[in-house]
Amino acid sequence: MILLLGATGYIGEAFASELRRRGADFLPLSRGQVDYTRFEVLLEQLRLRKPSFLINAAGYTGKPNVDACEAHKADTLQGNTLFPQTVAQACAAAGIPWGHVSSGCIYSGAKVIVNGQARVEKDFTTPALRALVEKSPESVRGFTETDVPNFSFRDLPCSFYSGTKALCEEAIAGMGQSYIWRLRIPFDEYDGARNYLSKVQRYSKVYDNVNSISHRADFVKACLDLWELRAPYGTYNVTNPGFVTTRHVVELIQQRLKPARKFEFWASDEEFYRVAAQTPRSNCVMDTTKLLAAGVKIRPVEEALEASLKHWKPE
Amino acid sequence: MILLLGATGYIGEAFASELRRRGADFLPLSRGQVDYTRFEVLLEQLRLRKPSFLINAAGYTGKPNVDACEAHKADTLQGNTLFPQTVAQACAAAGIPWGHVSSGCIYSGAKVIVNGQARVEKDFTTPALRALVEKSPESVRGFTETDVPNFSFRDLPCSFYSGTKALCEEAIAGMGQSYIWRLRIPFDEYDGARNYLSKVQRYSKVYDNVNSISHRADFVKACLDLWELRAPYGTYNVTNPGFVTTRHVVELIQQRLKPARKFEFWASDEEFYRVAAQTPRSNCVMDTTKLLAAGVKIRPVEEALEASLKHWKPE
Repeated sequence: MILLLGATGYIGEAFASELRRRGADFLPLSRGQVDYTRFEVLLEQLRLRKPSFLINAAGYTGKPNVDACEAHKADTLQGNTLFPQTVAQACAAAGIPWGHVSSGCIYSGAKVIVNGQARVEKDFTTPALRALVEKSPESVRGFTETDVPNFSFRDLPCSFYSGTKALCEEAIAGMGQSYIWRLRIPFDEYDGARNYLSKVQRYSKVYDNVNSISHRADFVKACLDLWELRAPYGTYNVTNPGFVTTRHVVELIQQRLKPARKFEFWASDEEFYRVAAQTPRSNCVMDTTKLLAAGVKIRPVEEALEASLKHWKPE
Repeated sequence: MILLLGATGYIGEAFASELRRRGADFLPLSRGQVDYTRFEVLLEQLRLRKPSFLINAAGYTGKPNVDACEAHKADTLQGNTLFPQTVAQACAAAGIPWGHVSSGCIYSGAKVIVNGQARVEKDFTTPALRALVEKSPESVRGFTETDVPNFSFRDLPCSFYSGTKALCEEAIAGMGQSYIWRLRIPFDEYDGARNYLSKVQRYSKVYDNVNSISHRADFVKACLDLWELRAPYGTYNVTNPGFVTTRHVVELIQQRLKPARKFEFWASDEEFYRVAAQTPRSNCVMDTTKLLAAGVKIRPVEEALEASLKHWKPE
């Protein structure tokens, strides 16, 4: 039996539907019934129920956006660092393999290949890097699982949210039998407050940048496949291979959904942060070589994007 | 056998000498030999060695002062929140009773009795409150263990250090069989960088405020007494009963040690924070009723102060 924590959240509900689709024996544990955030309670549940696997899809993302985490530091730390450490330690004590939904938002920027050398660039809103992305996207590469996070409490500036996610990875990596699954900017065909494609349509102005992103159903399928394939435990970047610019996403939205509104872009990083955002945002490209090498099949980002907009279901 | 973590720190070494003095069977675990910050390693040690009690005197305080914690958020969180949670969970899994050195610096101010009602006041540098402290000290009361911390991530502003200490108490309180011992501003007769009486002598200007403080040897004795008396597990304020003003401490230093220098005071909270400090400082009064009611004997603060200055040992 698979134990699912955080089943009512945006990612947790996708795990629940995929597990149902696969006919898997799983139990969504609810905090109303069992306060599994308490170590002793969780450990007792694990010893009692002896799950074959546990999924932690709970986390604290901040509402309406990541700026809210700056004002709720205790809850952000509790949800994103202390609680996952509790799960890791309860699973280690009980010998239960498990997977944790982490985030790729612990990186900033991408690697740019110049004369055969990879150089990290953080601000892709400059004209030179915009042109590079446009003209030779193959020279833009993602961060791998062995790259040390560069958007964390150890490599400032970062958002408080990202700091807690990076610190969590430090705290749980290598403990017991565990997967760290890095999600980035979830999207799919279901219009809603957490869907990246909905957010882009609702921003007053759009922040153009480069990002790897994760189709929600593709993400949970890939996570479960890693476990079913018995891929080695450890950290995996779980995004649709490739990356997108926000400008390109807007073009696709205009072509496919033909919204009445016009889209404007922030002129620069500087304008965006001065006017619209309080805390730094992570924009980054991820490398999915390790995920694919493990034998996981996942659509390229362009295909997942096209399919989501083709089957778009307005709220 | 008692297992001691953090034995080489300022408080840890005092635990070690008091345990030696008592002829107790104890083992100071060193991180060089065993990386006890890793849950699985610590749990194995507990199962192997079966200590009767464990003391966690490790922590991250920031050097030269608490401002350093603002720049080292990951280490501060790791040392003060994640690591103690690891100890708590390992002890709970192995059924080992233990004690944690926490801090009273999760409160700000004191309670002032006005018309029989207690009101929390935070800034004791104002002339009205200075006069009150001077003329009717009996109307100033401390925070008890049931008061919710008012200098924490949940009650801003706070220092990052204090935020991590308060969050730690939330994470470990009520788990297993544990004491949370709240230390405040350690001092004793041994001149040194961590001794409050040394710090006061080395500040360019002194920040006048009201504080409960803990004589270092008195503190560790009281902590061990709680365990030896088998006092109920839980949180205890472990300071010398009463409180002091920095101005009074300076007077005592002048009388007893007759230093060549003159002492100047910051004019106000505002001047202190503008010129000398980056992050807010906790200044507060603690109530020790619970500690004394448990049967622990500890000298009043005035007596401990006088004795430290009488037996002063310059570095």
